[in-house]
Amino acid sequence: MHPLDEATALAGAATEPVRRGRTHDAYWTFIGPFGGASAATALRAVLEHPRRQGDPLAATVNFCAPIERGEFAVHVRLARANRSSQHWQVEFRQDDADDAVLTASIVTAARRESWQHQPAQPPPLPPPATMAPFAERNALSWIAQYGFRFAEGVFEPSEQPFDPPRSPRSVLWLQDDRPRELDFVSLLAMSDAFFGRLFQVIGRVPPFGTVSMTTYFHASAEELAAHGSAPLAAVADARVFHRSFGDQTAELYGTNGQLLATSVQIAYFRV
Amino acid sequence: MHPLDEATALAGAATEPVRRGRTHDAYWTFIGPFGGASAATALRAVLEHPRRQGDPLAATVNFCAPIERGEFAVHVRLARANRSSQHWQVEFRQDDADDAVLTASIVTAARRESWQHQPAQPPPLPPPATMAPFAERNALSWIAQYGFRFAEGVFEPSEQPFDPPRSPRSVLWLQDDRPRELDFVSLLAMSDAFFGRLFQVIGRVPPFGTVSMTTYFHASAEELAAHGSAPLAAVADARVFHRSFGDQTAELYGTNGQLLATSVQIAYFRV
Repeated sequence: MHPLDEATALAGAATEPVRRGRTHDAYWTFIGPFGGASAATALRAVLEHPRRQGDPLAATVNFCAPIERGEFAVHVRLARANRSSQHWQVEFRQDDADDAVLTASIVTAARRESWQHQPAQPPPLPPPATMAPFAERNALSWIAQYGFRFAEGVFEPSEQPFDPPRSPRSVLWLQDDRPRELDFVSLLAMSDAFFGRLFQVIGRVPPFGTVSMTTYFHASAEELAAHGSAPLAAVADARVFHRSFGDQTAELYGTNGQLLATSVQIAYFRV
Repeated sequence: MHPLDEATALAGAATEPVRRGRTHDAYWTFIGPFGGASAATALRAVLEHPRRQGDPLAATVNFCAPIERGEFAVHVRLARANRSSQHWQVEFRQDDADDAVLTASIVTAARRESWQHQPAQPPPLPPPATMAPFAERNALSWIAQYGFRFAEGVFEPSEQPFDPPRSPRSVLWLQDDRPRELDFVSLLAMSDAFFGRLFQVIGRVPPFGTVSMTTYFHASAEELAAHGSAPLAAVADARVFHRSFGDQTAELYGTNGQLLATSVQIAYFRV
């Protein structure tokens, strides 16, 4: 079983309104599970639900509080079902508390053929085989679950904060370290698999945590499956760091330069 | 009373878990209220709640179904309260139904002073007084509530769809038509006040509707208040139109080029 499937597995019948997840040591970050794995778990709860129709279109995940190591309850609710779209709400709770450690809204929809046009272009990248993999794999366990090949914007620790600040932009090949066919679960996790933009901007890793992330999917399940396990061409960037919060934008491209997902997030920092 | 304040007014005590809103004919779009006004109403429900602390940081609004003209119930729930952030859930329902016509998650947070850096730059724009206001104000009622001055990317109807498609990018000054001091309510509404990117790309207005929108706020309440009622410099763009859905990105800049809000949305279309 692939570690991502272990990390996102849910116990309890898929028809039940409350299921159970469990944090996985292979996807651990500073003080809780890797947010991408938590987001992917919320998505899996929706995908496995017998009433779910259509492909994921939009997922917003709010990281309300650190999830403690161990079990969490996964509450799933269909807030609205339309003819060709559904609106799902997911909430993680721990220790029988009433308050959430994670909330998510996930929209699924029929991805019918239509007129199409992609103004966005994938970043120019050398072939992955010609590039060195990112070597600092052991700082946090989740990092080792991915293969990173940076063409631009790699984190470099610095004794003094960079002045002027460096660019927040990164361009890279990104893939599951252990090969896994691309699907919505792994794509959502990968949309969070960028190092905090702030780190490379200042050359330090201060207290930091994602508060909210939104990912849009721009492909059908069949299109993701056709991509297979090849690396994704990715761009991550940021626009502002102000009053303790900074943003992140990301684009993930698949075979033939198809834009598969776009993502934004807002993160807390203390500098 | 400003029409935006009328459109976002809530009846019922702010301590009640369910309040009542009402659609406003001045903010009407194709088949329901202007999404920006609905989003702003959800935000107001949080802002007015006596337990609310901090400034809005992130707001995701899912437009689950068309809101019919008239009253709607506004359910407000604090899903998580931390020392310096809160996670709110809002849901609109109509006709005593159990299913939602709108869901929203809104994060509020203390915006403490910190290191700051803004890689994003406002778009170059001529002074607003030198630019002609957008003239097609009467197609939909909400359009007349805003002042638009386009430097780039204005909608032009075309008999034949543009081939090749035109750029989805617009650069403009945007403001409330009737002057109103900027606050989070009006800024959230304005983050949805861009015409569908698809319209200018193909030169037509096909069936279209926003499904989900996420806006991040990058300023404190004091910073917004200091902006006053001046126009915002805005950029809207899109990256992909594929299988019946397309995205939108937006940035809104205030005085001295400060990035006040960034926004994304995903919208249905039929072409």
